[in-house]
Amino acid sequence: MLSVKEYIQLVEGGLKKYIPDEVNNGPANLYNPVLYTLESGGKRIRATLLLMAANLFTDDLGKVIPASVAIEVFHNFTLLHDDIMDNADIRRGKATVHKKWDANTAILSGDAMIILAWKLLSKSDQTYLKETLSEFNKVAIEVCEGQQLDIDLEKAYLDDDDVNVENYLEMIRLKTSVLLASALKIGAIQGGANAEIAESLYEFGQNLGLAFQLQDDYLDSFGDQKTFGKKIGGDIIEGKKTFLTTKTKEMADSLVWNDFLNIISSNSIPEDEKISKVQDLYTNIGAKEATVQLAEEYFSKASAVLEALPVDEKNKNSLREILLMLNKREY
Amino acid sequence: MLSVKEYIQLVEGGLKKYIPDEVNNGPANLYNPVLYTLESGGKRIRATLLLMAANLFTDDLGKVIPASVAIEVFHNFTLLHDDIMDNADIRRGKATVHKKWDANTAILSGDAMIILAWKLLSKSDQTYLKETLSEFNKVAIEVCEGQQLDIDLEKAYLDDDDVNVENYLEMIRLKTSVLLASALKIGAIQGGANAEIAESLYEFGQNLGLAFQLQDDYLDSFGDQKTFGKKIGGDIIEGKKTFLTTKTKEMADSLVWNDFLNIISSNSIPEDEKISKVQDLYTNIGAKEATVQLAEEYFSKASAVLEALPVDEKNKNSLREILLMLNKREY
Repeated sequence: MLSVKEYIQLVEGGLKKYIPDEVNNGPANLYNPVLYTLESGGKRIRATLLLMAANLFTDDLGKVIPASVAIEVFHNFTLLHDDIMDNADIRRGKATVHKKWDANTAILSGDAMIILAWKLLSKSDQTYLKETLSEFNKVAIEVCEGQQLDIDLEKAYLDDDDVNVENYLEMIRLKTSVLLASALKIGAIQGGANAEIAESLYEFGQNLGLAFQLQDDYLDSFGDQKTFGKKIGGDIIEGKKTFLTTKTKEMADSLVWNDFLNIISSNSIPEDEKISKVQDLYTNIGAKEATVQLAEEYFSKASAVLEALPVDEKNKNSLREILLMLNKREY
Repeated sequence: MLSVKEYIQLVEGGLKKYIPDEVNNGPANLYNPVLYTLESGGKRIRATLLLMAANLFTDDLGKVIPASVAIEVFHNFTLLHDDIMDNADIRRGKATVHKKWDANTAILSGDAMIILAWKLLSKSDQTYLKETLSEFNKVAIEVCEGQQLDIDLEKAYLDDDDVNVENYLEMIRLKTSVLLASALKIGAIQGGANAEIAESLYEFGQNLGLAFQLQDDYLDSFGDQKTFGKKIGGDIIEGKKTFLTTKTKEMADSLVWNDFLNIISSNSIPEDEKISKVQDLYTNIGAKEATVQLAEEYFSKASAVLEALPVDEKNKNSLREILLMLNKREY
């Protein structure tokens, strides 16, 4: 078995092997932002999960590398275009493409990355190409739909009927979880797993993704700034819809809900006071506890699916390690 | 044999058959702009050429429809994103997506259309799927590269070394011609043609596309407004790089070239006078005649490739008709 670090090195090697061939003879102004984006790091989690899933069933990971690179390129396209839409300045500590170049460059380079993902995918083992494409076509459009649901949620008023726990969970499922899930499923398919087992790995990934995002919502309001890496309370100050806000809406009576709306929308309460007031409200109403519980539930489901997989127990260690790494971020 | 109109009706039928299934259950804010774009008409020339090419080799056009719809969806994605980059207000007489909605909506809906194109393509006859995808992956990235070369050319100064006939022709080849060419080639492949004949249809399309674009450059400066549909001289007023400007640069001595630059960049010469001065210069230097000649050369090459195709002569009539329709736009 490889270590997590060794899987990541395989992904990095794959990027170095396959990307230059695709971009070296094309217009520099199109491909420099692509290289800049792909070289700016990131945890390569999706590509790594794909390799780990494949490695449950095969030791020949070379043939799976193109698909793992494709998933990584596609994921980075979503970040590139999302950053334009969110008007974000910084990504992974560096200027975003639309800031370093301009919006038109970011649009066109992102378009090229989508197409590049399919080009890389087509280098997959022909035996599994049809199933791979079918899964990738499905998940790619779902990720776009998730981004749209996110935009719709952000534009809505907190009081709108559409702003609820169910829609929030569906949004994070599409925007975050399904790509993790499909990465694992494609890895399983290309490793030679049967359809049922590949589907189980999809379930593992979907639960893991939901757990991770819920935990992220929690940590943004209740984490430790040192380990979380960002200032705590950002979501509260931005008035972002999260699981905490939608769960509060579900659990609060109209008095508490109006109190919440007043705090969130106030321009006179100082930031630190606003954060601590909302933290108290989340705690008192039970939304804090509900978030932890639901995240743990998804982590448990992911773990149960993994443990039930009919594959060599010791081969599961790398996926167990990823699950633990994500789970132990704290609370 | 079908008439041109009947081929177009097949494309329209394909759009009605395949698009609703893809979009009806997704977020309206993502897919309404997609439907708006696809329903706003256009000549469906690429999809029509694909069907015509297939029809040279098979009467079973039903199995070719998904690829023709895919090509049409991809082409419309390029228009949607290009309109953002050009900040264009109007497309086919209607507000562009980024004007009717906003830039973020236009970016994300365009992204969805790219992915949709591959989803549709994967519905192709499995026998030809691998070759089809290989061709489509290649042409899709070439179209992006062509758009980048166009942006690079527009940003450059007329005096830059990169602004020359060779680079201009490569730009229009990638931006306009290769998608026509690949549409024909994919049609041929899916109709059952052998590789050599499919390649000939690619050549036919590439020459046709180059001829069409050169003719378009000519008509923008020398056409008849009534038949051309736009005000004559638009390119001159906008200072757009065209075959006429790059050919003038190649043919003019430094005195004439400086004269040209002074006219083009002048803010004091009235528009009508500027247009007629540049028209005279193009005529006197021989750039006007060179444009007509090169366009005719490409039309002739396209025609020669078509006539040499070893297929039933009467089956060629629809492609002959398209060529004539494009060629006879005037001069």
